[in-house]
Amino acid sequence: MRGAVAKAGVLTEALPYIRTYRGRIVVVKVGGEALDDPHLASIVAEDLALMALVGIELVVVHGGGPQVSLAMTQAGVQPSFVDGLRVTDAATMDIVQRVLVGSINPGLVARLNDAGLSAVGLSGVDGGLLEVEPATSGAGHDLGFVGEVSAVDTRLVSTLLADGRTPVVASVAPDVDGVAHNVNADSAAGTIAAALKAAKLVYLTNVEGLYSDFGDRDSLVSEVKLGELEAMLPSLSAGMHPKATSAVRALRAGVGKAHILDGRVEHALLVEVFTDEGIGTQVLLDHSSHPNGGRSSC
Amino acid sequence: MRGAVAKAGVLTEALPYIRTYRGRIVVVKVGGEALDDPHLASIVAEDLALMALVGIELVVVHGGGPQVSLAMTQAGVQPSFVDGLRVTDAATMDIVQRVLVGSINPGLVARLNDAGLSAVGLSGVDGGLLEVEPATSGAGHDLGFVGEVSAVDTRLVSTLLADGRTPVVASVAPDVDGVAHNVNADSAAGTIAAALKAAKLVYLTNVEGLYSDFGDRDSLVSEVKLGELEAMLPSLSAGMHPKATSAVRALRAGVGKAHILDGRVEHALLVEVFTDEGIGTQVLLDHSSHPNGGRSSC
Amino acid sequence: MRGAVAKAGVLTEALPYIRTYRGRIVVVKVGGEALDDPHLASIVAEDLALMALVGIELVVVHGGGPQVSLAMTQAGVQPSFVDGLRVTDAATMDIVQRVLVGSINPGLVARLNDAGLSAVGLSGVDGGLLEVEPATSGAGHDLGFVGEVSAVDTRLVSTLLADGRTPVVASVAPDVDGVAHNVNADSAAGTIAAALKAAKLVYLTNVEGLYSDFGDRDSLVSEVKLGELEAMLPSLSAGMHPKATSAVRALRAGVGKAHILDGRVEHALLVEVFTDEGIGTQVLLDHSSHPNGGRSSC
Amino acid sequence: MRGAVAKAGVLTEALPYIRTYRGRIVVVKVGGEALDDPHLASIVAEDLALMALVGIELVVVHGGGPQVSLAMTQAGVQPSFVDGLRVTDAATMDIVQRVLVGSINPGLVARLNDAGLSAVGLSGVDGGLLEVEPATSGAGHDLGFVGEVSAVDTRLVSTLLADGRTPVVASVAPDVDGVAHNVNADSAAGTIAAALKAAKLVYLTNVEGLYSDFGDRDSLVSEVKLGELEAMLPSLSAGMHPKATSAVRALRAGVGKAHILDGRVEHALLVEVFTDEGIGTQVLLDHSSHPNGGRSSC
Amino acid sequence: MRGAVAKAGVLTEALPYIRTYRGRIVVVKVGGEALDDPHLASIVAEDLALMALVGIELVVVHGGGPQVSLAMTQAGVQPSFVDGLRVTDAATMDIVQRVLVGSINPGLVARLNDAGLSAVGLSGVDGGLLEVEPATSGAGHDLGFVGEVSAVDTRLVSTLLADGRTPVVASVAPDVDGVAHNVNADSAAGTIAAALKAAKLVYLTNVEGLYSDFGDRDSLVSEVKLGELEAMLPSLSAGMHPKATSAVRALRAGVGKAHILDGRVEHALLVEVFTDEGIGTQVLLDHSSHPNGGRSSC
Amino acid sequence: MRGAVAKAGVLTEALPYIRTYRGRIVVVKVGGEALDDPHLASIVAEDLALMALVGIELVVVHGGGPQVSLAMTQAGVQPSFVDGLRVTDAATMDIVQRVLVGSINPGLVARLNDAGLSAVGLSGVDGGLLEVEPATSGAGHDLGFVGEVSAVDTRLVSTLLADGRTPVVASVAPDVDGVAHNVNADSAAGTIAAALKAAKLVYLTNVEGLYSDFGDRDSLVSEVKLGELEAMLPSLSAGMHPKATSAVRALRAGVGKAHILDGRVEHALLVEVFTDEGIGTQVLLDHSSHPNGGRSSC
Repeated sequence: MRGAVAKAGVLTEALPYIRTYRGRIVVVKVGGEALDDPHLASIVAEDLALMALVGIELVVVHGGGPQVSLAMTQAGVQPSFVDGLRVTDAATMDIVQRVLVGSINPGLVARLNDAGLSAVGLSGVDGGLLEVEPATSGAGHDLGFVGEVSAVDTRLVSTLLADGRTPVVASVAPDVDGVAHNVNADSAAGTIAAALKAAKLVYLTNVEGLYSDFGDRDSLVSEVKLGELEAMLPSLSAGMHPKATSAVRALRAGVGKAHILDGRVEHALLVEVFTDEGIGTQVLLDHSSHPNGGRSSC
Repeated sequence: MRGAVAKAGVLTEALPYIRTYRGRIVVVKVGGEALDDPHLASIVAEDLALMALVGIELVVVHGGGPQVSLAMTQAGVQPSFVDGLRVTDAATMDIVQRVLVGSINPGLVARLNDAGLSAVGLSGVDGGLLEVEPATSGAGHDLGFVGEVSAVDTRLVSTLLADGRTPVVASVAPDVDGVAHNVNADSAAGTIAAALKAAKLVYLTNVEGLYSDFGDRDSLVSEVKLGELEAMLPSLSAGMHPKATSAVRALRAGVGKAHILDGRVEHALLVEVFTDEGIGTQVLLDHSSHPNGGRSSC
Repeated sequence: MRGAVAKAGVLTEALPYIRTYRGRIVVVKVGGEALDDPHLASIVAEDLALMALVGIELVVVHGGGPQVSLAMTQAGVQPSFVDGLRVTDAATMDIVQRVLVGSINPGLVARLNDAGLSAVGLSGVDGGLLEVEPATSGAGHDLGFVGEVSAVDTRLVSTLLADGRTPVVASVAPDVDGVAHNVNADSAAGTIAAALKAAKLVYLTNVEGLYSDFGDRDSLVSEVKLGELEAMLPSLSAGMHPKATSAVRALRAGVGKAHILDGRVEHALLVEVFTDEGIGTQVLLDHSSHPNGGRSSC
Repeated sequence: MRGAVAKAGVLTEALPYIRTYRGRIVVVKVGGEALDDPHLASIVAEDLALMALVGIELVVVHGGGPQVSLAMTQAGVQPSFVDGLRVTDAATMDIVQRVLVGSINPGLVARLNDAGLSAVGLSGVDGGLLEVEPATSGAGHDLGFVGEVSAVDTRLVSTLLADGRTPVVASVAPDVDGVAHNVNADSAAGTIAAALKAAKLVYLTNVEGLYSDFGDRDSLVSEVKLGELEAMLPSLSAGMHPKATSAVRALRAGVGKAHILDGRVEHALLVEVFTDEGIGTQVLLDHSSHPNGGRSSC
Repeated sequence: MRGAVAKAGVLTEALPYIRTYRGRIVVVKVGGEALDDPHLASIVAEDLALMALVGIELVVVHGGGPQVSLAMTQAGVQPSFVDGLRVTDAATMDIVQRVLVGSINPGLVARLNDAGLSAVGLSGVDGGLLEVEPATSGAGHDLGFVGEVSAVDTRLVSTLLADGRTPVVASVAPDVDGVAHNVNADSAAGTIAAALKAAKLVYLTNVEGLYSDFGDRDSLVSEVKLGELEAMLPSLSAGMHPKATSAVRALRAGVGKAHILDGRVEHALLVEVFTDEGIGTQVLLDHSSHPNGGRSSC
Repeated sequence: MRGAVAKAGVLTEALPYIRTYRGRIVVVKVGGEALDDPHLASIVAEDLALMALVGIELVVVHGGGPQVSLAMTQAGVQPSFVDGLRVTDAATMDIVQRVLVGSINPGLVARLNDAGLSAVGLSGVDGGLLEVEPATSGAGHDLGFVGEVSAVDTRLVSTLLADGRTPVVASVAPDVDGVAHNVNADSAAGTIAAALKAAKLVYLTNVEGLYSDFGDRDSLVSEVKLGELEAMLPSLSAGMHPKATSAVRALRAGVGKAHILDGRVEHALLVEVFTDEGIGTQVLLDHSSHPNGGRSSC
């Protein structure tokens, strides 16, 4: 019974977190790295499944950088980046969409279904979820078929959540003429979380979290206020910048909290969501509010 | 991170059990002993809350033997039992109802609410949940205001479950003239589980489980088939007999499984429901069936 | 056919009152006195049933002063009052809850069910209906476990009404720590009526109504405006004060009308609600409004 | 208070009848005679309103014989009858439809609205409620535009009842080509009651009830079993025959009970439905059944 | 296949119009002239049916001037008009109601049902749809039972639309005492369209459209802005004035667009609604707005 | 107005077809050929949009043979076929899924959205729509990752239809272990139509229809009974065989009708569905039934 008692302890430790998040929306952005390793991918799927099964209204958004780069190399196309954004000509865009929508997305949906969910793969075109405008780099370079989200319609996502499904979104979306564009997945996740007024937005990345000094691994920040993060934006690394920017926008738009976690650590999601252990970096509102449901004071 | 990994392991171990029972009805009968000790009562409430919070449609049924006996002693009335059933005259019945409905029930509701649920106390009279006929002992003794359930109407329970509430039922119910009677709580739990076609029926008792030989503590049975349990009925102890009888009836009426657990062990419920550890006694159908939801074979 | 004609006349006299109140919420506070006499209690139940059966959304709130006092005497505890409020130590509170929640409440529910309703007994703890803070007497005396309602959540009541049930509320409620407190039933009824924006709030009492001069039985007031009643508050008797105070609060919060009736008169409720006979005291808004449903003027 | 007590007595006498019929469908056929006298018509409207307002799902069907005959005389057309059925040529049919649908129907709807209902006038064409085939007299005479109901679709009626409306049906209906025909109102009422499985079907007529010997006013039958009525059919008067025939069909099709009342007696409906006074003739099933709602025996 | 290609071209031309109006409310006022000729009436019914069948929420309002005049002549009553409004004494009102409600309305309902709809005939009294006050002519003449709409309650219409029915409204309505009055059908259509915030209001008339110079058939206006039409009101012909006035009111109240079409032209409705051909006169808002559904910009 | 009249004629010709199919499910299988030519693809999208916009519950299933073959050639892999089924090794399967799910599917969704729908792309994995078992050729050859549908769960499709969406299904589906397999699109369409009890199943192909003698273009069959088609199965061409087989199965399972159309003909869909012109081959049940909705005969 020794092990049994310890197990019960872990489960009861999870109780207040389940109480807080069940029935509320959590958006998780899963990076391509976490999905590239089958073992890690299967653990991530298990963690996401547990979140959904305890009643969290889960929305998953994924990218697929490494897989796209591999497919480009196989097709003899050389990836090129400007300001951390992939320059995307028509041939590249074709590869991007085939890999993200036609390979990574159904693969992740299959894993989530195996873990007990009823997942549904989407990209920006489905139900008009996302619409983009052409993006340009900071320096004004034309990036080709790279889009910035200009409109979002989450009604299909809400219908699927209400039907007990788990939407899994690939970060590709059409412009107003229906032409597919590549969208930064961090940014797509933040936009969707904002439109849904999610309770929490989690980035599963390939770093430990946010460093106050990018060169110094001891400078990992475990908690940062929204205002502080905004002040840090100019000094952030190219990889962290879109996450931080979209986290700031999401919290400004009503999302409750954001987390940046190391997706290479097994079960990082579960530990962050359901235990008292603090990992990665947590971004909080400057001031928190206390809604009281249907109860009115006298 | 060592502890974090172990914790994640416990949570993922719970995944298949959550998958199996979420959205399905589980009826838990909590004995008076488990509620008599404040520490144990608070742990039981926590365990029940976790079950409900991960999406199990939970119905709690409770008795309150020790508390009734105490109240009778305080009032100068001497408890008497025939065949393990309390002989209940009008004065005793008054005490039974006041203790079960007016003290134990709201106390348990308060604990469950503190643990994050929205519990609602009921007894058999509420919404016409249970109706009884006078019971007699095996030897034909008049037992006074002791009733055997003759009709059950679970529509109120279903309304409350659909509204996200947790019904908590005290085992007192009226006869056709509206006169309150004492009802064996094991039997009430079984009747309600049967009417709801519950997926599982759990008895939290003050014994370790079912013994094949009552005098021999080593004869604890960890699993028994319905047919075998039926064969054992004549030889069971007075305390175990109503549990076993009502378990048999419930499984015959469509309940999926029954469990007899030791309510004195901390978190016995959690361990039984969410871990691979086997405790207590499990009663299984002789043959199991495999429903496949909305999916049809081709 | 003579009697038949007269009967038809009474029924058609009731028509405009049914038209006015069907589909609207009426809260009736029933005093312990009316429930103490079985004959009177059965008539009250019949009257309440008729109200609910013609389509009024009925909520019943009850106290139980005489029954609590009797139980205390039987247990050898001496009731004591400060400012008309019962001083309630732990032992007394135990008796209060057992009598109100465990005896009077299921008794009234049983009577209402016998009269054709599907009643459901509640106290403040159920579904988090009421939460209290410790009350003190005007002179600052500690009253023990006496609470003043600090929060109300009528969602469970609304669910039950929508399901065709009649909620019956005992005036006991937990504080923030889940500890049960005694609540003045007049005040609980007013608070619930206010939260539900009831069309009408009726107090069934043991006096004829409100007297302008408490010593003079000829000074019975048959109608009083809200502003006038507010002005009378300081001069009212100890028994009338909580009724009048809670009526004033309820009307200020949007309740349409209040009535103070003599619960000792047979069928006082029916006569007040469904006939042209004026009995007891009616409290009206200073100015009345005329909602016109979904019809818009051109 | 004397009158008040008597009034309360009448109201409580009505209680069991309200309990029985609320939420159940009652179809009332109102004869043209009852609507011809404004005083009587207004009383009938009041009675019908009371029935609907206490929660009975009321469907009203009306004819208009005297009014049609008057309009024909005014237009210089001579009414002629075969076997009690009006011979209806095209000009007559035009008058029938204008009087029933364009005059009596909106007049009755207006009266019911004034009495507090939200009534909606229909004829057989609306929502495809009724479809007819040409009727012939027993002797094979062509009756012109007289139809016998060949199909019924009560979905519109159910929608209106669910929306809290009171459908008022004029007995005119199209054949398969959309050509309007005159339909016997007794027969239309019986057909609609049967399709709705009404709890009760009431004929408000211009006789006291059913006579076992038509010439003898002392032979009024106050209660008759379905089988007995069937046996009496061949000997009934021309006016009573369609009522009795359609009552027999309706009860055979699942209607609970039928009543034949004297519509010339003020408030005959109220007295029959809500009091212990027996008036007119009641047609009962040979054996009655006892449904028990959602409650299951153990 | 030649014809097939042309047919497909017409169908695809209709696509954007179906896209625009499906799921939105269109109110069509059909003049008595269009219903007087059976051939034309059957084409109008077919056109209306097509509109409803492609998903337009259709509400039909009709008058019946010529038919009323004929019935009056047949009854030996001489029609008289003041300011284009029919002077209506009690005998005339009786004829008006019988013709509109009892003849034209069920006739149109039958035609629509034959064309595949489930139409439901209404007049102002049904479900309290319209209530009127006595109208006077501009010069203050008493017009008898002529009413101006003073209140509108479209809840019944909405219930019917949600149930997939097509409401067909005869322009007769009661005053506050339930007395039927004649209502100008153009004005009734405008009032109902305004209350429903219809997307479009169409008048099927017996002129080609609006003329800027009434005497000059070449002055037909194919499009006019709301402000311009308002300026033209004083100079309009007696027949056009109520249409133009009610169109102005409807657009001011939120209706999207109005059309005045020649109902004597076969399929004028279909051509106007579903093709690029412009016919009749279109009344537009001075400025148009662009709602964007559930999509939000980023 | 000449053109206008002709247009109106086409629209009214469509009326009975709209009446028949609105609110009913039609499954359209679109072949890869029809989607390969942008001009044709845009016409097909327009036709599908019109079907959905007039209220048909549309489900689109597509293949993509030519596009897959091209992608394989580009990747240097040589397509090989056995019995008309593509032999699919792991590398080929990867290409199949990327092309069907990641390129053709979102491309068709984008076209349908541009035409006014809210389309949602699916493959067999989404919401567990389809599950497969490995298929073998008739001669028992291992075909690699080619699957035959073994289970279908259309609940997600029904949810999307009820939400006003148009599901677009790519014919790829997982086996029980979640491994993606290639599925014959004709067969997938038939299976889904059968599970949904579709009113109609349409195959848009690259032949004119079914030939009784494959070598003789004059032997085009415009109508064939189910029994006759079954008899022809052994003699059909390799391309027609899966269509015919799945049509037979679908009709046997309750689908109302099947059509085989030439997708290379512009607007073939519109012409078949909405006009009197007969094109392609129609497969009918041997006997047809006449459901009559909610109307019951008397």
